[in-house]
Amino acid sequence: MSRNEITFRLATRADLPSIVRMLADDELGSQRERYEDPLPQAYYAAFEQVDSDPNHKLVVAELNREVVGTVHLMFLPSISFQGSLRAQIESVRVDKNYRNRGIGNEMLKWTIKRASERGAHVLQLTTHQSRADAHRFYVRLGFKGTHLGMKLSLK
Amino acid sequence: MSRNEITFRLATRADLPSIVRMLADDELGSQRERYEDPLPQAYYAAFEQVDSDPNHKLVVAELNREVVGTVHLMFLPSISFQGSLRAQIESVRVDKNYRNRGIGNEMLKWTIKRASERGAHVLQLTTHQSRADAHRFYVRLGFKGTHLGMKLSLK
Repeated sequence: MSRNEITFRLATRADLPSIVRMLADDELGSQRERYEDPLPQAYYAAFEQVDSDPNHKLVVAELNREVVGTVHLMFLPSISFQGSLRAQIESVRVDKNYRNRGIGNEMLKWTIKRASERGAHVLQLTTHQSRADAHRFYVRLGFKGTHLGMKLSLK
Repeated sequence: MSRNEITFRLATRADLPSIVRMLADDELGSQRERYEDPLPQAYYAAFEQVDSDPNHKLVVAELNREVVGTVHLMFLPSISFQGSLRAQIESVRVDKNYRNRGIGNEMLKWTIKRASERGAHVLQLTTHQSRADAHRFYVRLGFKGTHLGMKLSLK
């Protein structure tokens, strides 16, 4: 592995502080996460759920053995589209100190490849209307903004 | 149960033709589904995947013992939002012959209640930008169109 090669692997429990730090380090995320030491137990409980489900892949990107990105890839069995598998991504983040180096691009390309290999017919995501940079980033990767993403808060 | 009461239950294999008929009976759906007799085997294979996963609930609405609506409710474990469970719906349909009778509204209220009871912090969906009626329908139920839904075709 060359010094500057980005690698991808499944996250472990030990990666959770790095992941939550990236989720929290953003205008929207700072209002809803709790990046504390120790990390609130709820994050570990959620990790166990994700990690034990073969339809969920919590992934980290590493550069020089440091976690610099994360994506939660999930596979959703579905009746529609003639019973085709859907892939979906949530919680896509690149460490603020490592932006504009193509890490997000490599991470997404890696993710698209995994989703294809698993046989998904589509990879879907939603991104907040305010994230114009993210929209352009995904369009460059081939995504089309054909849908309105709607949310109902239940708490 | 009164004559006109709508009831909801998990779908069985025997409901698949009714479900696929509703998915296909629409401008977008007609291009991507195959409502044939017998139904393509892929639909049954997908049903087994959905039915065997406790995070997936394929639901039908019944009126006078006839299937008149369907919704696929799924629960997504997630690290974000302090490790909160997300709920998501896909493939929401009401039979064309039974529209404008409040069936969709009752079906969604029932779905929102199930998602709340399971402890989800949000119920999310995407709907095609062209479905203006659907947008208004979900706004009336309290959903907010805060996100852009993006899709990448993998086939």
